[in-house]
Amino acid sequence: MNLDYVLEDFKDLTDPKVLVHGASETMNEIAEKLGEKPKIVTSVSGFESRLTDEKAMDIMMMAYSGLVNKRIVEKLQALGVQAVGLSGLDGRIWEGRRKDTIKIMEEGKKKVIRGDLTGKIEKVNLDLLHLLLAGGYVPVITAPGISYESEAINLDNDRALAVMAGELKAEKIVSLFAAPGLLKDFSDQTSVIKEINKENLADYYEFAQGRMKKKLMGAGEALALGVKEVYLSDGRIEQPIAKALKGEGTVIK
Amino acid sequence: MNLDYVLEDFKDLTDPKVLVHGASETMNEIAEKLGEKPKIVTSVSGFESRLTDEKAMDIMMMAYSGLVNKRIVEKLQALGVQAVGLSGLDGRIWEGRRKDTIKIMEEGKKKVIRGDLTGKIEKVNLDLLHLLLAGGYVPVITAPGISYESEAINLDNDRALAVMAGELKAEKIVSLFAAPGLLKDFSDQTSVIKEINKENLADYYEFAQGRMKKKLMGAGEALALGVKEVYLSDGRIEQPIAKALKGEGTVIK
Repeated sequence: MNLDYVLEDFKDLTDPKVLVHGASETMNEIAEKLGEKPKIVTSVSGFESRLTDEKAMDIMMMAYSGLVNKRIVEKLQALGVQAVGLSGLDGRIWEGRRKDTIKIMEEGKKKVIRGDLTGKIEKVNLDLLHLLLAGGYVPVITAPGISYESEAINLDNDRALAVMAGELKAEKIVSLFAAPGLLKDFSDQTSVIKEINKENLADYYEFAQGRMKKKLMGAGEALALGVKEVYLSDGRIEQPIAKALKGEGTVIK
Repeated sequence: MNLDYVLEDFKDLTDPKVLVHGASETMNEIAEKLGEKPKIVTSVSGFESRLTDEKAMDIMMMAYSGLVNKRIVEKLQALGVQAVGLSGLDGRIWEGRRKDTIKIMEEGKKKVIRGDLTGKIEKVNLDLLHLLLAGGYVPVITAPGISYESEAINLDNDRALAVMAGELKAEKIVSLFAAPGLLKDFSDQTSVIKEINKENLADYYEFAQGRMKKKLMGAGEALALGVKEVYLSDGRIEQPIAKALKGEGTVIK
């Protein structure tokens, strides 16, 4: 990802617009410097995920809501965009249900882990988003979110984006990452799948590796909630948003 | 300071209200864990201050706008307060002039240092504050601020609070810290100066040590801008705000 290219292009989009970002690389770097090893677990269904305990949540706040969110706001302000950085905690923008236990496999045995601070988004504070958008502000939103019991929770950004876009009745989502789009052959960067009809989205899950699977699922959710078009495209190139909207990556509609 | 006592009491204040906080201890802890030593310089006028270079600004964002701001928002949300955490960068809430050079004394010689990211607040985005307050939200604001050239800058929190309170036409400021008030004798915790007439504020600077000097200067500025009463009081005790308002600390009016 090239943040400067992304923000330079984002600036030119007509309002209203909302930017959602992650910070997983920065979080890993800070955690490593602080000597905190990520606790990776394997769920019974075979997915690897990171446990979010209180220490990991501290570092999530430092990286996502602190360093990366504020550096993005600073860059957008320098580009003349009236950006306001928020986490999903602020005004309960991203609210959801905490999953307090997770079932994992450890040394071939099933085990239940408690104390994990992750959850699933279910509610969006549209009032606050509309207030800011109507006031001419551009929300820049990131994790964590908030549980119904008011605990900070690690939410999946792609799902949070999908649900929020649906609630906002957004027409388009542009999702950028370090690949040219959804690839038919993971080892061939030229094998981008250009267009997917949303009715057939499930047929394409087999081509998705790692995080891309979550992006496809998020796209499916957003389209089901009324979003018209989802663009999955390359965030490393110049004019990444304009090129995505021209169809250079994968379009799902 | 006891954050739980402060927030529990803050919850009961009638709206509209705004919370401003620092995070210098947390910043020092994170900096130390990251192996970043604070660069302390002595100005030609004899004041010690910390240089804010790009690395220090990163850590400021992690500690102030990230970890501490979001943990306060989380606690306030759990108390039923619709808190929205913001830095002075967001929507240019705290804007000011960057001081790009500072004159220091080093080994008895005058020296000019460039690249310091500090500044002085001059403008407040009242539009965004009023928008949030009218919407029923409680802004929770912290450093950094933003320069006219859109760089993140380290602002003095006490001055930022004073200028913001003046612009908001706030009636009262309650400023809490780890002492029972302004002390006549720094070594005697019972020597609290109960009341100061704002006309005579300058006579009391001699009693202020360290940060307290900045708090007195901030109080003077706030009163000059129309704030009616400034309370300097103990943040370590139960009901710290109620007790401050009852006159248990130092009242300046």
